[in-house]
Amino acid sequence: MSKRNLLIVSTSTVHGLPYLSYLKKEVVKHFAGCKEIVFIPFARPGGVSWDDYTQVARNFFESLDISVKGIHEFDHPVNALKDAQGVFTGGGNTFVLLKEMHEQDLLKPLRSCISDGMPYMGTSAGSNLTGMTVNNTNDMPIVYPPSFEALGVIPFNINPHYLDPDPSSKHMGETRETRIKEYLVFNNLPVVGLREGSFLEVKGNEIQLKGELSMRMFEKGKTPYEVEPGADISFLLNGTSRID
Amino acid sequence: MSKRNLLIVSTSTVHGLPYLSYLKKEVVKHFAGCKEIVFIPFARPGGVSWDDYTQVARNFFESLDISVKGIHEFDHPVNALKDAQGVFTGGGNTFVLLKEMHEQDLLKPLRSCISDGMPYMGTSAGSNLTGMTVNNTNDMPIVYPPSFEALGVIPFNINPHYLDPDPSSKHMGETRETRIKEYLVFNNLPVVGLREGSFLEVKGNEIQLKGELSMRMFEKGKTPYEVEPGADISFLLNGTSRID
Repeated sequence: MSKRNLLIVSTSTVHGLPYLSYLKKEVVKHFAGCKEIVFIPFARPGGVSWDDYTQVARNFFESLDISVKGIHEFDHPVNALKDAQGVFTGGGNTFVLLKEMHEQDLLKPLRSCISDGMPYMGTSAGSNLTGMTVNNTNDMPIVYPPSFEALGVIPFNINPHYLDPDPSSKHMGETRETRIKEYLVFNNLPVVGLREGSFLEVKGNEIQLKGELSMRMFEKGKTPYEVEPGADISFLLNGTSRID
Repeated sequence: MSKRNLLIVSTSTVHGLPYLSYLKKEVVKHFAGCKEIVFIPFARPGGVSWDDYTQVARNFFESLDISVKGIHEFDHPVNALKDAQGVFTGGGNTFVLLKEMHEQDLLKPLRSCISDGMPYMGTSAGSNLTGMTVNNTNDMPIVYPPSFEALGVIPFNINPHYLDPDPSSKHMGETRETRIKEYLVFNNLPVVGLREGSFLEVKGNEIQLKGELSMRMFEKGKTPYEVEPGADISFLLNGTSRID
C-alpha cells in the first residue's frame, strides 16, 4: 500500500499575508523531522531565476529551522531526490515546470520517493504536478513540454486557484467551470477545483480537504458539486494512480 | 508579396448582442463575392458537436446570403480548403482546434490558400490559429496537440479576450499581463493583447487595428504599452511569418 504523504496546496499566498504564512502550522507538521528539504524552483513565477526563487522558499523555512537546497544546486538532481528528506515544489508556470521535470528525467525518481513515504508539498503549479496530467492548469502554455503527463501520485487532477463564475462579468472568455467541463468531454479523470486557502492532505489511502472553504468536484457525467472540509472523499483515491 | 486577407477577431460575441452581430458590416465586406465559405468547427466551445457548431455559423451567414459548409462535411477536407472561396474558424478551445488541424494535416493547405489571397476570418481560438504559435491562448490545455505551432500567417502571436488586471481582486492567480510577460522571458515573438470588440485587419503587408478600444502590445525587453486604433502598426509585419 502506498505510503504517500502529500500536501496539495491551491496557493502559496493568500491575499494580504506573507508567503506561506497562513499554512505555517501545517508545514511544520508535514515536514516534522526534516532538517533539510529539496526545493524545486522550475516553475519560475514571473520568470524569476532558480536561485532567487529558492531564496524565497529558504527565507520562509529558515523560521522553521529547516534548511532549503534548490534541486539545481546539486550535481546530481536524481540522487538529490533519492536522498531527500522532503521535497517542496513552488508555484509559477506549470508548463515551464513540467518541461524541465521531463527534460531532466525527474518525474520517475520523485514519484518513487513519494511512493516510499517521503513528504512532498506542492503549491499551485507544484500541486498540478501531483495529478495524473497537467490538463487542468490555469497557466498560459508559454513553452511546449514533451508530454502533459505529470507525477500521478493521486489518481485525479487538480485545478488550483479555483475561481467561481462572476455573475456580474461582461467578459466573454470561458469561466473556469466551463473550461473544466470541456475537459470532461474529452477525458475521464475527476478534477478537484481547489479554492485559494484550501489544500488536500493525502496520507497513504486517506485523503482530507483542509482549509475553510469547500472544493468543487468535477466528474464525467455528473453536475459539478461542492464538497465541504471534513467530508468523506476517499472515493477520490479509488482510481489508478502511477504509484499504486 | 503575400496576398493574405485576414480578419483576426478577439471574440465572436460581445456581451448582450447576438453571435457576430457587432461585426456584421466587416464580415460582409471581408467575404464580399463569396457564395459559400468553409467553417472550421474543431474548437467546439463547451464540447458542442461539429454539426451543431457549424449550424450556429450557418444561421449567422444565412442573413448575408452566404452558405456555410463545415470542413468535416467534405470527403476531402484538404481539397475543400484548396477550393474554398473563404474560411472562417470559430472559437472554443484552442488546444482541441490545433490538435485536430495537425492530425488532419490541414495547417499547410490552409496557410497556402491564405497566401494566395483567400479571405480568412478567425474569432478567439480561430484568431490564435493565425499566429506563429498558440503559446498565448487563454484556454485550458485539455488535450495535447503534437506541437504548439500554428498557421503563422502573421509573424507574431495573439492573446484574444485580453483582460486588464482588476485592482480590487484578491485572487492570487496571475494576471494576463503577468502571463504574457512570462512568455517573453522564454520567447521573442511580439504578442498582441486584443480586447473584446477589437480586431486586426491584415491585407498583404498592411495591418490595422479596428474597433473602439486600444490593444496592448507586448515586446521582449519593453514595458507593455497601448496602441490606439488607427495608429501605424506596420512594424508588426516586419518579422518572418510562415508565408513570407
